[in-house]
Amino acid sequence: MKRVGMAFILFASFCCAQEPDSFQPAATNVWEAQYPRIDSAGRAEFRVKAPDATKVRLNFWSGPKLDMVKQPDGFWTVTTPPLVPGFHYYTLIIDGAEVTDLNSHAFFGGGKDASGIEVPEPGTKFYSIQDVPHGQVREIWYYSKVMGAWRHALVYLPPNYDTQTSVRYPVLYLQHGGGEDETGWTKQGNANFILDNLIAAGSSKPMLLVMAYGYARRAGQPQPDLTGKPFGSPEMMRAMQDVAAAFEDDFTQVLIPYIDSNFRTLPDRDHRAMAGLSMGGFQTFQITFNHLDLFSYIGGFSGAGPMAFGNQKPDMKTVYHGVFADPAAFAKKVHLLWVGVGTDEPERMRAGLQNLHKSLVEANIQHAFYESPGTSHEWQTWRRDLKDFAPRLFQEAAQ
Amino acid sequence: MKRVGMAFILFASFCCAQEPDSFQPAATNVWEAQYPRIDSAGRAEFRVKAPDATKVRLNFWSGPKLDMVKQPDGFWTVTTPPLVPGFHYYTLIIDGAEVTDLNSHAFFGGGKDASGIEVPEPGTKFYSIQDVPHGQVREIWYYSKVMGAWRHALVYLPPNYDTQTSVRYPVLYLQHGGGEDETGWTKQGNANFILDNLIAAGSSKPMLLVMAYGYARRAGQPQPDLTGKPFGSPEMMRAMQDVAAAFEDDFTQVLIPYIDSNFRTLPDRDHRAMAGLSMGGFQTFQITFNHLDLFSYIGGFSGAGPMAFGNQKPDMKTVYHGVFADPAAFAKKVHLLWVGVGTDEPERMRAGLQNLHKSLVEANIQHAFYESPGTSHEWQTWRRDLKDFAPRLFQEAAQ
Repeated sequence: MKRVGMAFILFASFCCAQEPDSFQPAATNVWEAQYPRIDSAGRAEFRVKAPDATKVRLNFWSGPKLDMVKQPDGFWTVTTPPLVPGFHYYTLIIDGAEVTDLNSHAFFGGGKDASGIEVPEPGTKFYSIQDVPHGQVREIWYYSKVMGAWRHALVYLPPNYDTQTSVRYPVLYLQHGGGEDETGWTKQGNANFILDNLIAAGSSKPMLLVMAYGYARRAGQPQPDLTGKPFGSPEMMRAMQDVAAAFEDDFTQVLIPYIDSNFRTLPDRDHRAMAGLSMGGFQTFQITFNHLDLFSYIGGFSGAGPMAFGNQKPDMKTVYHGVFADPAAFAKKVHLLWVGVGTDEPERMRAGLQNLHKSLVEANIQHAFYESPGTSHEWQTWRRDLKDFAPRLFQEAAQ
Repeated sequence: MKRVGMAFILFASFCCAQEPDSFQPAATNVWEAQYPRIDSAGRAEFRVKAPDATKVRLNFWSGPKLDMVKQPDGFWTVTTPPLVPGFHYYTLIIDGAEVTDLNSHAFFGGGKDASGIEVPEPGTKFYSIQDVPHGQVREIWYYSKVMGAWRHALVYLPPNYDTQTSVRYPVLYLQHGGGEDETGWTKQGNANFILDNLIAAGSSKPMLLVMAYGYARRAGQPQPDLTGKPFGSPEMMRAMQDVAAAFEDDFTQVLIPYIDSNFRTLPDRDHRAMAGLSMGGFQTFQITFNHLDLFSYIGGFSGAGPMAFGNQKPDMKTVYHGVFADPAAFAKKVHLLWVGVGTDEPERMRAGLQNLHKSLVEANIQHAFYESPGTSHEWQTWRRDLKDFAPRLFQEAAQ
């Protein structure tokens, strides 16, 4: 609520008329915020108030890191070089404190509600809202016996789910990355609009998307004390494995049964897919290959488990319980194995996914490999991944 | 997305074990953040990193404003006196820049994604998630011809909406305050849990809640240039009236027909209510009294139009087209007029609502008046308002 009454809030929203040049407020801004603003070349101009600060830095996570310049009015400004199209997280560093730009809406990433800016990609509409039938995103709360806690998830239902009440649908479970949460795929990824558009074009089967919260701790399990334990220490690795194992149990023992009980799904492996980005790809490989009785379509978006990090060469005969040992059996069991990466991702990611692709080729494992041109470890890559991945789902199974 | 890989994010989430004293991390914190933390007396301890700042201030919007103290490790800390139970917005002022505390989840208020802290109210469960049947909150996107733009709203559907497919339901339209948005009533207000609990107890009829975005501008209408125009200037008042009128048209001409077309509602005035907080109460009075053909239940939560500001005394014979001129006709037409305010709200708000109550009494207008003990212009007041208001709805109309 407002400290100074609604009148002031509304007044503030009118304070600055649009500039007559080609810069336009970003679509990710809060109501009426004029900055950041973007020109047709993708340059973005930022303006933040910090009258008593001595240093303010603009901090794109995958993009420029620029010192801002103090103006006489107490605002700091900077204009970036042309940015890669798509959604970019950013924060500000004000006198050593990492904070957000309150002109921007918040997007959960990096373990916090960060700022973000949407840079338009000219001519690209596949992730925009369009005049086609729209599905609905629903919030669900389910009680997890594994965690002893209520869990929140989002479920996209395709257009006409409510009216075609005798139809049952396949399900794609879609996981966010490390530091993100269940809101990422719709807020940053526009997954609902991507599916609306694909379904309207006849490119994808109507399906549910289920977007879960990717962290978990077992009921009664205390938060581990890692004080003084270095990054990569056995204690830390153990703690990460505990989270991953608790999430796997919650996912397979609680979430999937909840979805199949509460929505009109086709509740079998032929009609169940899982994909995730980065950490979510890691989780996807762990969960699906541990539970091939539950899944037959698998996607790793810029992440696919330890076997897709850097220059590791997995033993394709033994990794994941030997699932790749028999290519013919694999092709029969897994309707789709899909991996993708952006061509401008950090070397470790890019090499990891490319090496995984090579290993799969050498092992004669049928799979799809996609490279997103010119994009980094960011949402534009994952939007394109979903656009390529979703149309391949549920085409083989008897519908 | 993570700048340094998911492993680091997970590591960061384990860095600090829980302290052995009675302070517990706030429920509003992000995953595993240890601060802010609250003790059983409602005192809250904050800790934020700002190594190069010269001044950091904790800024509760309705509560304490405290200088934080720099520690040798570059973190700033402070502990508040006991806080009033409920949800409180806050920000930080770091060297003159208003920013958020990234330990907290973001809650949209004051025109920005601000920080918030939930202070438990011992023994109070009416706004908590409980083991009762849960409704679902859905996101909808509707195209507004009034605005020439897509609009986002949230709709709560009561438990069993999906399974009892021949049942139609009444609708409560519930508006946020100035500077907030359509997410406020569920994220800050827990309106979905309040309704779940009231419905499970048999206290409220099952109903839909529709939560719309309370700002609008007509298609083609430019953003007004108010540069140099003082607060309260005719130009500013005109701009505010334009927003209010555009919202009224969007609400009555587009949103309500969309809801009645897309959900199983009882689409008549006897089964349609509207309430709002602060600016939303203002909008509720404007819209309902301009459209009594559409509404028969009306609620003003800490706001009820210009007649409820400060010490104004409206002319009860003429205000709102003379709707109060004939008390008997009013009681017949309006099934419920409800106004409420917190006893600790700023004088202007408190006096405004109390004077409105007096004016209604003097004019013999049947209504309900509720005062929330010990709470200010904040969400704890509005949660209690909804708890008192919702059970009174749709009891008179033939179900």
